[in-house]
Amino acid sequence: MATLADIGVAATINIITAIIFLLAFAILRIQPFNDRVYFPKWYLKGIRSSPLHSGALVSKFVNLNLGSYLRFLNWMPAALKMPEPELIDHAGLDSAVYLRIYLIGLKIFVPIALLAWSILVPVNWTSDGLELAKLRNVTSSDIDKLSISNIESGSDRFWTHLVMAYAFTFWTCYVLMKEYEKVASMRLAFLQNEQRRPDQFTVLVRNVPADPDESISESVEHFFLVNHPDHYLTHQVVYNANELAALVEKKKSTQNWLDYYQLKYTRNQEHRPSIKTGFLGLWGKKVDAIDHYIAEIEKLNEQIMEERKKVKKDDTRVMPSAFVSFKTRWGAAVCAQTQQTNNPTEWLTEWAPEAREVFWSNLAIPYVSLTVRRLVMHVAFFFLTFFFMIPIAFVQSLASIEGIEKSAPFLKPIIEKKFIKSVIQGFLPGIVLKLFMIFLPSILMVMSKFEGFISLSSLERRAASRYYIFNFVNVFLGSIITGSAFEQLDSFLKQSANQIPKTIGVAIPIKATFFITYIMVDGWAGIAGEILRLKPLIFFHIKNFFLVKTEKDREEAMNPGQINFHATEPRIQLYFLLGLVYAPVTPVLLPFIIIFFALAYLVFRHQIINVYNQEYESGAAFWPDVHGRIVSALIISQILLMGLMSTKRAAQSTPFLIALPVLIFFFHRFCKGRYEPAFLRHPLQEAMIKDTLERAREPNFNLKGYLQKAYIHPVFKDDYEDRFDEISGYGLKDSDEECVIVPTKRHSRRTTPAVSHASRGSSPSPSKK
Amino acid sequence: MATLADIGVAATINIITAIIFLLAFAILRIQPFNDRVYFPKWYLKGIRSSPLHSGALVSKFVNLNLGSYLRFLNWMPAALKMPEPELIDHAGLDSAVYLRIYLIGLKIFVPIALLAWSILVPVNWTSDGLELAKLRNVTSSDIDKLSISNIESGSDRFWTHLVMAYAFTFWTCYVLMKEYEKVASMRLAFLQNEQRRPDQFTVLVRNVPADPDESISESVEHFFLVNHPDHYLTHQVVYNANELAALVEKKKSTQNWLDYYQLKYTRNQEHRPSIKTGFLGLWGKKVDAIDHYIAEIEKLNEQIMEERKKVKKDDTRVMPSAFVSFKTRWGAAVCAQTQQTNNPTEWLTEWAPEAREVFWSNLAIPYVSLTVRRLVMHVAFFFLTFFFMIPIAFVQSLASIEGIEKSAPFLKPIIEKKFIKSVIQGFLPGIVLKLFMIFLPSILMVMSKFEGFISLSSLERRAASRYYIFNFVNVFLGSIITGSAFEQLDSFLKQSANQIPKTIGVAIPIKATFFITYIMVDGWAGIAGEILRLKPLIFFHIKNFFLVKTEKDREEAMNPGQINFHATEPRIQLYFLLGLVYAPVTPVLLPFIIIFFALAYLVFRHQIINVYNQEYESGAAFWPDVHGRIVSALIISQILLMGLMSTKRAAQSTPFLIALPVLIFFFHRFCKGRYEPAFLRHPLQEAMIKDTLERAREPNFNLKGYLQKAYIHPVFKDDYEDRFDEISGYGLKDSDEECVIVPTKRHSRRTTPAVSHASRGSSPSPSKK
Repeated sequence: MATLADIGVAATINIITAIIFLLAFAILRIQPFNDRVYFPKWYLKGIRSSPLHSGALVSKFVNLNLGSYLRFLNWMPAALKMPEPELIDHAGLDSAVYLRIYLIGLKIFVPIALLAWSILVPVNWTSDGLELAKLRNVTSSDIDKLSISNIESGSDRFWTHLVMAYAFTFWTCYVLMKEYEKVASMRLAFLQNEQRRPDQFTVLVRNVPADPDESISESVEHFFLVNHPDHYLTHQVVYNANELAALVEKKKSTQNWLDYYQLKYTRNQEHRPSIKTGFLGLWGKKVDAIDHYIAEIEKLNEQIMEERKKVKKDDTRVMPSAFVSFKTRWGAAVCAQTQQTNNPTEWLTEWAPEAREVFWSNLAIPYVSLTVRRLVMHVAFFFLTFFFMIPIAFVQSLASIEGIEKSAPFLKPIIEKKFIKSVIQGFLPGIVLKLFMIFLPSILMVMSKFEGFISLSSLERRAASRYYIFNFVNVFLGSIITGSAFEQLDSFLKQSANQIPKTIGVAIPIKATFFITYIMVDGWAGIAGEILRLKPLIFFHIKNFFLVKTEKDREEAMNPGQINFHATEPRIQLYFLLGLVYAPVTPVLLPFIIIFFALAYLVFRHQIINVYNQEYESGAAFWPDVHGRIVSALIISQILLMGLMSTKRAAQSTPFLIALPVLIFFFHRFCKGRYEPAFLRHPLQEAMIKDTLERAREPNFNLKGYLQKAYIHPVFKDDYEDRFDEISGYGLKDSDEECVIVPTKRHSRRTTPAVSHASRGSSPSPSKK
Repeated sequence: MATLADIGVAATINIITAIIFLLAFAILRIQPFNDRVYFPKWYLKGIRSSPLHSGALVSKFVNLNLGSYLRFLNWMPAALKMPEPELIDHAGLDSAVYLRIYLIGLKIFVPIALLAWSILVPVNWTSDGLELAKLRNVTSSDIDKLSISNIESGSDRFWTHLVMAYAFTFWTCYVLMKEYEKVASMRLAFLQNEQRRPDQFTVLVRNVPADPDESISESVEHFFLVNHPDHYLTHQVVYNANELAALVEKKKSTQNWLDYYQLKYTRNQEHRPSIKTGFLGLWGKKVDAIDHYIAEIEKLNEQIMEERKKVKKDDTRVMPSAFVSFKTRWGAAVCAQTQQTNNPTEWLTEWAPEAREVFWSNLAIPYVSLTVRRLVMHVAFFFLTFFFMIPIAFVQSLASIEGIEKSAPFLKPIIEKKFIKSVIQGFLPGIVLKLFMIFLPSILMVMSKFEGFISLSSLERRAASRYYIFNFVNVFLGSIITGSAFEQLDSFLKQSANQIPKTIGVAIPIKATFFITYIMVDGWAGIAGEILRLKPLIFFHIKNFFLVKTEKDREEAMNPGQINFHATEPRIQLYFLLGLVYAPVTPVLLPFIIIFFALAYLVFRHQIINVYNQEYESGAAFWPDVHGRIVSALIISQILLMGLMSTKRAAQSTPFLIALPVLIFFFHRFCKGRYEPAFLRHPLQEAMIKDTLERAREPNFNLKGYLQKAYIHPVFKDDYEDRFDEISGYGLKDSDEECVIVPTKRHSRRTTPAVSHASRGSSPSPSKK
């Protein structure tokens, strides 16, 4: 068990690491040749231009202004200066709301820490449970003196913890509710203030049923002309361009290689570069690299042309999905929220995602397949969660003093040195865990993609919730009850329902020191490392040196990155979980968490303002998930506290504690009903107001023209002009007429739009216009 | 433990009881003076008229046609003769689909029973596990020889049971899916073929926000004119007429008493009846009954008039809810399925229930209160479930041979007689349980009402699902593991997660005989008793003798009753649960269940055709619940089988069995996504087709006039004519104009309907008409 001294060493190491990172950042960021690494957002916005264009040669690369070195910490206040509305304007609502997660952390834990330190810590400190335990030969660390462990079993002092648990819960719920309210209103205001955007008018229709008489495009048009006669405007079918996209991608990378070799050749004219054509260029025939790649590109160009023609001609390449646009936002809101036909697996409508966040290749998955995919992924995730732990536990057991001594006895003399021992105990377990976790979000993202979500934001949300569960099982539970997750599962199945919280509850105070070091490694040094952007820095300079020829190349080399919601948010949630679990048990942990939240808030605010460039904007659609996870952390913390208390012979507290999860469950239900619809549905009133305002302001706006180009597969983006007539020309041909009567080949159709209109006196008859 | 002989006795008793009931029914139903008890449905339909009007005096009361006595069983084929479409026409979809629950029972269990008897029973019978166990002094009954108990631990024969479990599961799922599909299509066809009904055009709006400038009625009208300009037609506000309804109810009962005493007086002119005015007429001043009630009625009349005036005048009596009607079904479908404003707790819209199934007094409950009420009721239900068991267990323990001998030793000589012993063992436990259950549905219904549901069908559905849970915990689990439910809960909490199914699983084969007797008492004799309608029969004749003066009185005395979904469906579900649990374990139970389903199908089909008169028609909205509960029974059965198998040292089967619940869970998810929307949402296509057809057929129908009278609180029904102008006259005044422009007092409103229309070029402008 780690002592206070161990923690001190770990803290020193981590603080020093963090300070080194921050210092390096402070110095690197004011060097002009790093400008594009640390301020790419401003370049992308077009506000900042390259510093390489002006000034003396040296000062282009190195900052010689000594004054700026003295002010090296001034990025901190600068990061805090931008007010929130400006931030939303600058970086989007997603980023602004993402920052609020850190703020919530501060709002929840600062008052809780104050309360805990002023009440709980003295109560714990003045007890002597550990003194008594020592007589029975139980060892304990200094930190335990401040924790609930120091209270003797059956003591009346546990009432303090009980009351505090209530206080913490109510405070957390209060903050959560206020925040939900605030974010919901921010989202609504954001959507309300937004400019005209295609997705406001557009609905994604999936599972269009096949019709022997009509093409998908005709079928869609007929359906919506009949069922939304006053609102339907136009539509775009979706092409299966996955192969084309792959070809384009391949061409791009080949082009890159060609550029590289050409640059190499221009620098060294004597030696014409050559490559081997085999696997990874390791063996095979040796050919001239430039010629080879030129030939390759030509071949690819041909293939691309051919594939394009195929997509154009081939009806089987039209997927049974379409983006249907309406004349008004009201019409789109109605269509997105209603069921169209008897069969709820056909003509599925949902609000279209922003064009840039559409995940194109999933658009054609049929309904039954979706259920099967979901099942498969759930099972796969179950196995991933419970078997991924085996290597972690193995390495962690190696990384303990005893483990190393056992597996590598020759290291014993080194390890036994006091300092190194502290390093190993305070540092290694966290690092091991960390390394394992780096690759996980990408795996989970692939799983989400397989599951068939169609927008990037929903992909990320699903990956995030899986990551959270993984973190909970493997990092949180896995660290508390060591042993592989499968062993845990097995032992949990064999334990009784009220024994499980006890088993975990008892281990919680013991593991406090481990989590403190984990917070320092992951939360302090890790966050400080984030601001340094070591990887992008190195890659930028490598690219800059080897590949960049034009200003556009330099732009592409920047790689501003973005908040990877699915990778970062679940990690923050772990801190919420730790904070809430340890608040009534070992309040010593809280300051470490508060420092994490404060530092992370600062760092990410800086990064969001200066670096990150979000790929898409979902309007904070992730908030219900964030809220739900904090609530579940709260419930977990109470169940574990209940388990801990009951082992302390404070069983009379159980009925009081059991009421808390029930109350919180209903608090969650209430919040869900009250605020979640703002994130899922689109109120008609808002749509109507926007429609009305817009009609008044721009009565002659050509909406049809505006919308027709909106949802085109990115590989067609560059050449939609010439393909336009053929791809989505169905509506274009008659773009002058407001309403179209489409001849239908089907004779059995009982209602046709023409009849339906002529016989309805009070509504407009398109055939008359 | 009951032996085969015990079961034989119980079976004989129950079969005799059932036959007596059926015979009594066969004779009573052909007596003319019982005609209104056994054929009320036909009277209500106006097809059958009273047999008292024609023929000789005696034959008015007693059937003298001996031939009809010989054909006394011909009600059975007659009940089966009516084809389903005619049945739907005759009794409504709810009843027709309700019968399908019994049919499903047959469809599931007949093949399962055949399979089980041809494979499982021989496998069990030819084993000799019990012979071996007998050597170890374990007692067993004859039935156990046919059950899984007869297979020795660790035998390879368990693979048969495993394969059978898979076969049963797949068959059940197949039947369930086919049936869901069928019922969904029946519902859609039913809704499609329906006549014009007000609820097709009407949406219920709740939580209309208070507005200082406008009344509720104005506020509703403005809101929908602005946000559904092309579709809004009219609306009716809801009055808080609960007090008025109570007064009317009181007047009715007083009138009844008056009638009774007047009839008494006319029969016995000498003695003028008198009553005491105190509590329940037991003490207090003695007054003349007729005068007293006349005075009472006069007083009540005055109060009613006053209350009516109050409701008319008083703005605070207008509840923040309204029934909003639209010009088209499309408009109503859109409004019911969309969110209206930013605040998801205001302007809540949902499809209006049929006028006769509105539960008026719940219409005004605000949103927050709903959450709290739900919480309170969940907690209350929890306690009801776990403490209601104590008296049952107490009485059951008394009703056992040993219990009776202990508590009443003087009865010992009687009880010890073989026949009486069998009666007590085979009969009493079932009856005790039964008596306790009779009052439960009413309690659960009151709880649902408190929870705030607004339609009778949703009230019944909630009560039914609670009743099912109650049944599961107390009847099923409570009978398997005797002891109070709270003790069970406690022991479950203390047991490990995989110990619980084992504990229950082991007890299952032992309890087979108990459940067989339960099925015979509740399912055979009980159902046969249902057809006799003893209570309505007696009440009808009493009323007929004491109260009936006119033909109308006789009509009212009939009390046809109805299927009480919330009381009967959960009981059927118990049979599904028993059947599925026992199918792989003790297949002997299955024939008993099949007889129940067949008999019940026959009886209820007869009752539905001839007797019951449903209060409302929900279009089989209960089906998703029925489906869900059978699925959950399936999952429970598999978990218990898993528990049982693992105690039999057939642990290698666990991985195969664990896959089943997972598969079924996803089967449920699939069915939910595929079919449930048909029961919840209203496809726009259907609405559009109906609208179009109707416009073509009746272009000049006055929809506004039709809808304006639809949703009036029943107490106003008789006098809406004179109140009409004042109550919902807002729309009436201008019923000639197609669209109304309502002057609004508010000046800050940015959009008004007039502007919104004038500036939209392509859409109809009502102001121009």
